[in-house]
Amino acid sequence: MAEKYVYSFKEGNREMRSLLGGKGANLAEMTTLGLNVPPGFTITTEACNRFYEESEELWDSLKEEIKEHIKETENQLGKKFSDEDNPLLFSVRSGAVVSMPGMMDTILNLGLNDKSVIGLANSTNNERFAYDSYRRFIQMFSDVAMEVPKSFFDSVLDEVKEKVGASKDNDLTADDLKEIVEQYKKIYEREIGEKFPQDPFNQLFLATKAVFKSWNNSRARVYRMLHSIPHELGTAVNIQSMVFGNMGENSGTGVAFSRNPATGENVMFGEFLVDAQGEDVVAGIRTPEEIHELKKVMPEVYDQFVNTAEKLEQHYKDMQDLEFTIENGILYILQTRNGKRTTQAAINIAVDMVEEGLITKEEAILRMEPSSLSQLLHPNFDEEDLKNSTKLSKGLAASPGAASGHIYFNSKDCIEAVNSGKKVILVRQETSPEDIEGMIIAEGILTSRGGMTSHAAVVARGMGKCCVAGANEVRVDEALKLMKVGDKVFEEGDLISLDGTTGIIYSGEIKKVDPELAGSFELFMQWVNDLKRLEVRTNADTPRDAKVAFSFGAEGIGLCRTEHMFFQEDRILAVREMIIAKDTEQRKDALDKILPMQQKDFYEIFKVMQGKPVTIRLLDPPLHEFIPNTKEDINKLSIELDIDPRYIEDTVKELREVNPMLGHRGCRLAVTFPEIYRMQVRAIMLAAIDLKSEGIEVEPEIMIPLVGEKKELDYVKSQIIDEIASVFEESSERIEHKIGTMIEVPRAALMADEIAEEAEFFSFGTNDMTQMTFGFSRDDAGKFLSEYVDKNLLDKSPFETLDQKGVGQLLEIAVEKGRKTRPDIHLGICGEHGGDPASIEFFNSIGLDYVSCSPFRVPIARLAAAQSNIKSKK
Amino acid sequence: MAEKYVYSFKEGNREMRSLLGGKGANLAEMTTLGLNVPPGFTITTEACNRFYEESEELWDSLKEEIKEHIKETENQLGKKFSDEDNPLLFSVRSGAVVSMPGMMDTILNLGLNDKSVIGLANSTNNERFAYDSYRRFIQMFSDVAMEVPKSFFDSVLDEVKEKVGASKDNDLTADDLKEIVEQYKKIYEREIGEKFPQDPFNQLFLATKAVFKSWNNSRARVYRMLHSIPHELGTAVNIQSMVFGNMGENSGTGVAFSRNPATGENVMFGEFLVDAQGEDVVAGIRTPEEIHELKKVMPEVYDQFVNTAEKLEQHYKDMQDLEFTIENGILYILQTRNGKRTTQAAINIAVDMVEEGLITKEEAILRMEPSSLSQLLHPNFDEEDLKNSTKLSKGLAASPGAASGHIYFNSKDCIEAVNSGKKVILVRQETSPEDIEGMIIAEGILTSRGGMTSHAAVVARGMGKCCVAGANEVRVDEALKLMKVGDKVFEEGDLISLDGTTGIIYSGEIKKVDPELAGSFELFMQWVNDLKRLEVRTNADTPRDAKVAFSFGAEGIGLCRTEHMFFQEDRILAVREMIIAKDTEQRKDALDKILPMQQKDFYEIFKVMQGKPVTIRLLDPPLHEFIPNTKEDINKLSIELDIDPRYIEDTVKELREVNPMLGHRGCRLAVTFPEIYRMQVRAIMLAAIDLKSEGIEVEPEIMIPLVGEKKELDYVKSQIIDEIASVFEESSERIEHKIGTMIEVPRAALMADEIAEEAEFFSFGTNDMTQMTFGFSRDDAGKFLSEYVDKNLLDKSPFETLDQKGVGQLLEIAVEKGRKTRPDIHLGICGEHGGDPASIEFFNSIGLDYVSCSPFRVPIARLAAAQSNIKSKK
Repeated sequence: MAEKYVYSFKEGNREMRSLLGGKGANLAEMTTLGLNVPPGFTITTEACNRFYEESEELWDSLKEEIKEHIKETENQLGKKFSDEDNPLLFSVRSGAVVSMPGMMDTILNLGLNDKSVIGLANSTNNERFAYDSYRRFIQMFSDVAMEVPKSFFDSVLDEVKEKVGASKDNDLTADDLKEIVEQYKKIYEREIGEKFPQDPFNQLFLATKAVFKSWNNSRARVYRMLHSIPHELGTAVNIQSMVFGNMGENSGTGVAFSRNPATGENVMFGEFLVDAQGEDVVAGIRTPEEIHELKKVMPEVYDQFVNTAEKLEQHYKDMQDLEFTIENGILYILQTRNGKRTTQAAINIAVDMVEEGLITKEEAILRMEPSSLSQLLHPNFDEEDLKNSTKLSKGLAASPGAASGHIYFNSKDCIEAVNSGKKVILVRQETSPEDIEGMIIAEGILTSRGGMTSHAAVVARGMGKCCVAGANEVRVDEALKLMKVGDKVFEEGDLISLDGTTGIIYSGEIKKVDPELAGSFELFMQWVNDLKRLEVRTNADTPRDAKVAFSFGAEGIGLCRTEHMFFQEDRILAVREMIIAKDTEQRKDALDKILPMQQKDFYEIFKVMQGKPVTIRLLDPPLHEFIPNTKEDINKLSIELDIDPRYIEDTVKELREVNPMLGHRGCRLAVTFPEIYRMQVRAIMLAAIDLKSEGIEVEPEIMIPLVGEKKELDYVKSQIIDEIASVFEESSERIEHKIGTMIEVPRAALMADEIAEEAEFFSFGTNDMTQMTFGFSRDDAGKFLSEYVDKNLLDKSPFETLDQKGVGQLLEIAVEKGRKTRPDIHLGICGEHGGDPASIEFFNSIGLDYVSCSPFRVPIARLAAAQSNIKSKK
Repeated sequence: MAEKYVYSFKEGNREMRSLLGGKGANLAEMTTLGLNVPPGFTITTEACNRFYEESEELWDSLKEEIKEHIKETENQLGKKFSDEDNPLLFSVRSGAVVSMPGMMDTILNLGLNDKSVIGLANSTNNERFAYDSYRRFIQMFSDVAMEVPKSFFDSVLDEVKEKVGASKDNDLTADDLKEIVEQYKKIYEREIGEKFPQDPFNQLFLATKAVFKSWNNSRARVYRMLHSIPHELGTAVNIQSMVFGNMGENSGTGVAFSRNPATGENVMFGEFLVDAQGEDVVAGIRTPEEIHELKKVMPEVYDQFVNTAEKLEQHYKDMQDLEFTIENGILYILQTRNGKRTTQAAINIAVDMVEEGLITKEEAILRMEPSSLSQLLHPNFDEEDLKNSTKLSKGLAASPGAASGHIYFNSKDCIEAVNSGKKVILVRQETSPEDIEGMIIAEGILTSRGGMTSHAAVVARGMGKCCVAGANEVRVDEALKLMKVGDKVFEEGDLISLDGTTGIIYSGEIKKVDPELAGSFELFMQWVNDLKRLEVRTNADTPRDAKVAFSFGAEGIGLCRTEHMFFQEDRILAVREMIIAKDTEQRKDALDKILPMQQKDFYEIFKVMQGKPVTIRLLDPPLHEFIPNTKEDINKLSIELDIDPRYIEDTVKELREVNPMLGHRGCRLAVTFPEIYRMQVRAIMLAAIDLKSEGIEVEPEIMIPLVGEKKELDYVKSQIIDEIASVFEESSERIEHKIGTMIEVPRAALMADEIAEEAEFFSFGTNDMTQMTFGFSRDDAGKFLSEYVDKNLLDKSPFETLDQKGVGQLLEIAVEKGRKTRPDIHLGICGEHGGDPASIEFFNSIGLDYVSCSPFRVPIARLAAAQSNIKSKK
């Protein structure tokens, strides 16, 4: 035999997961551990792949191999497959490497036919049981393996029950069931065009084919696409001898977790049914009993099970999710796997297990899914109330959290509604910096356009505010103040709810519950800090954001954008005055008005951060973002500033850009108007001097955005240095500080060796770098990016997880060149990717010093940083 | 003495240009050749640089060195500097490495003072000459070295002339001149606050300082910036003993070219004056005589001069521009340099010199400035008429040529005016593809916005049409059909003229002259072809463009854009129908209408190119470029297509993009709508099959734009291949073809190894790559790019000459990675840089196979390709 495609449970172990699938590997492992697992074997995932190469047919040598393993099982149990006297029956289950909904589930009692059913009746002395099993087998086989609709069988069952006056299935007699079996076989023949297969091997091969085929059905394919599971993995098939929990009062079946999956408490958690088969527990026909009740019913079996669960937990070093069957007082273990749990339980279990000495801190950390932590940081909808709510549509889960409120379509209306005591949700096609005030006071934000890194998404995450972005099916008419979903029209003031963790939009209001932050969370995060190498900073533009991030353990601010400060009511007028200034003098006058306000901003942020490093990015966006667009607003501004509206209109026209992303912004503004950056660094230094007099020493890091060429940096830096020198001279004080650059323009990465001559730090702006390296505008790419992911042309949106192959190359070039010129250059990243675990692993691997992310991502980033550090040491 | 800063003419040679400046090196060379050059010496450019380090003062050891060289010259001539009996006088001239207007010119007769002027009168026996020389010296010295306005002196001269009744300078007597000298000295004292310097060394040092300072005056700085001349070069100072052409009938002075600089004819060309100094020839007080007349006046001197000119031409192997003086029958050569000439003369001279055996073909090629060829390809304004015309303003010299016409502000008005027999100039703020028809029929195009690679500039160059772009001072109101320059208002129909070679805008009409294409041009270009390695293709979208390029020697089409074809009147409706199609079926119906038209386009282009390779880029721009924007046009379209205008409006809104440059375009369109590219490749193949039946075999190269990822290419390519296979099957024909990609997205360069697995050729789209690598939108960057160049932050606009340091790195990465995967991959470039000589040299050096440029750049690119190949072999 050339290749081995079938493994007995005795041959495998849990390391063989990719070959045997998760279920098969665990069955083998338990068999080797000496647990009482019904014997059987696994057909490998490689066989599945070959099945597709063989035009979806089983090949002869595989069939031979299966037959040999059937024989081996027969020998082991002293029974014969489908024997006419004492038949050996099998269950057939799929078993992929990663558990996957949508694939074929289970066929029980395989091997029954018109003859062996009699043998089963005789050997168990229970004719009713035998025909009930046969009936179930025909239905499952037809439904699961042959795609005959289940309803055809159900209606026969109902008819017979009505005819004989049976109210429950259990009321049916053996004869009733015999009649049902006959009718079921007819349905099969009618639908499939062949008699119901009597040959047990034929049954087995058809079931195996069905499992293999289910790997490629559309539901499974979609699931794999969504979860980035490679299509080439294939599924295994597990063929296991049947045991019966429905053999009387001395039998039963159940499922249990070795600890509580909701809270993490170290107490077994589960349920069981006496005299029942597994499917009965699931079907809910009878109410199962709490697992600890088993102690009363079958004390020995209970102790045996508790021991087994403990043994498996010790062995797998993780909380286990077990399935068992008791046949005539004998305990069989049918499945074990690491149990799913809530994030809170996961934290508690991990911390407990470390304290029990079962696992190391490193293992505890590696086992936690970083993004799951967000569950602990935001309030969630009440589960019950959620179930009863009406789903409207789905957008991108842009910023986690749960929000209910009355919808309003602009900042002004939001503010009025909030002032009148309402909770509001801001609904926009997409947001812009002008919507900030509305965003701040809204419970949540909904946009119909834009992606995961759209303005709405980025700002909302920064605020830790619930946001559903890019909800394509939602049509927003801002002018008419209407929102349409399909036929439904929502007007201003209507109630909706947003789940920022799933992206689902509901109509009406939904109750919320605050999550408990258990004490073990803090301990766990302390371990995380001990074991990570990367510094984790936050992107924070306001004292409020800084405070949140600080409480989440941010070790500094990696990106303090200064443009949002410009939008506040008390200063936007001065900012606009600056922009439409006719000459440098007028511009300086306006800047003088802004200076004290900026100084106060920085003072407050520095104060919150208590001496931790704060990186301040000087003004970045194009100036037209600050100027109103509509005729009405222009007229208003012209009155406020006492300037001819036509002049303002001209300025607006002049500032308009075809591609603002690639326009007059970043340090390019400072090349044209050096006085803007001069004002900003003056404000920074004056704030730092104020704090110094209060005993807080801050070392500001001044960051120049959008640099692409060393001479450009030289020019802007010389202006800054000159201004700082003046401040120091005037105040007779000195503040330690650093001057560095964003590396976001691809050319900056390529020229990093030259740029590092003048830059004391680099902060990679991976958002813009991704935009320019791909040529994707993040404001526009939403339209086609989803198609790229659907068609498998991109694994993920490069705005969510850094594109390591392309953009990553530029980062590596920049790191190498930057360090070559300046070995101690401080390297970090402040794009949205700074909060993405997969990206953080890459940043760790290329040797960055820190990542910076929005406040609510800080714990996630800390965990991801620790994980990547632990992994890199392995 | 630590360092040597002064070189006698006997010590130098022409190789020492960077130390002695151009003039000094040539004076030394001629001295060494044994020509009769008045002795003297040169202060080096290094001295100039040290002068700036020494706070703009001459240092003692330099003064000593100068004095020693004065003594040496005195010894050589047996005269003493400023001697009271027989004074030795000097001229002082600046002499940079590259001749540069704006720098200090010449001071003659230095050394004269109140005493030596008497000596000069005695020794020449000519008192009038002596005082005239002294008067000239004071004026020149004051004006040139000390910045006393020349007009102060002129008015004194005029006063005296009036007083004594002299109508010409020559009528003044020695006594008159003495009085003038006295008054001149008073002016000097009044303006400078010191007496006119009597010490000859003081005069000399002041003059030397003046030359050094003139290196850094603003005119000189601006000139260097414009011509990319490094500020560090410095200027030399030439100090040469005076000879006098104004000593009587046996003396004279003149300038001459060794060949005709206008036509290139091998006949001496120049003029002379008897009894005159050099400045008299320039001043035009007397009309000089034709150089050949000298033979009659002084036959021996004439022969001597002709011999000298020939000797110098042989020696320098180039046409010489000579200055000479005859003092008492003795010929002195004062200067020689390679003479400036018209392009036509340059070609003729180069070809003649090769045929004379004086230079090699390689030398002939290297000596021609590639961009000067454009003079030969476009008609020019009549020089005389140009001088009398009124300059209005200046924009970018976007596309060479000369145009006069009536201004119109949109395509429609242009067409009407042309139909009524007028010549028109299209004036727009900026052009868009919708203006194509107007651009085609206009004589020239003027835009007030946009840079050298704006739509107007690129398309105009493609058409070989005169274009002045980005004329900032011109304010265009398209709605009112007005154009304002300062206070002047031009209305529709007014006449203006554009010079696309200088960027100057004139009011009114100017006469034009067609340049002659001399026969030697063809021969020269044949040599060019023999000596270049790079293939030179053209960017051509129409049969007309292709025809022009073919006649200019294009070896194929490197970029045939298909979008311009979509704008033609007969198909734009079908294109719009395609875009607003509600589903794939509707879209295919519309595409079916476009198919035969595209097929005809390709057929005609293929036919023109007669089997040479044609690279066709599939549809690239975002779809919104094809859809009207205004309410009026939308309504019109809704009637034409019988569709609800609101639906069209919705589509327009949906297609709108924040950054269209980074939006839904290029192959991204084909990922969403594969049927568009399918239609295009079908049209290509059907056209090729048609031609094959006529005996012309074309191998189309199908180019997929904006690829950034291999899987994206895989997908689009699979669609294309599938469609091509259908065409071949339906027609039972096969056409050899290639499928390749643009490399323009930075990521494509980084991933070139993977992309090369599927791409048979790469064509670098350096326009877009420059935009994305720098993060500069070429539509918007005009606003700040000029500031970058002015502030020396960038040497040149990276859209004109490829940024080798940054963008060039990406090209090198892509070349290396592409060839690694596919060693025979065909590599070219089709951005605007394909026609830029400096960029072509880089493309040659990194081993590209071809460049492609607009038709009128083809000869320039061919020449640049040959030059870079010759240089690389040195």
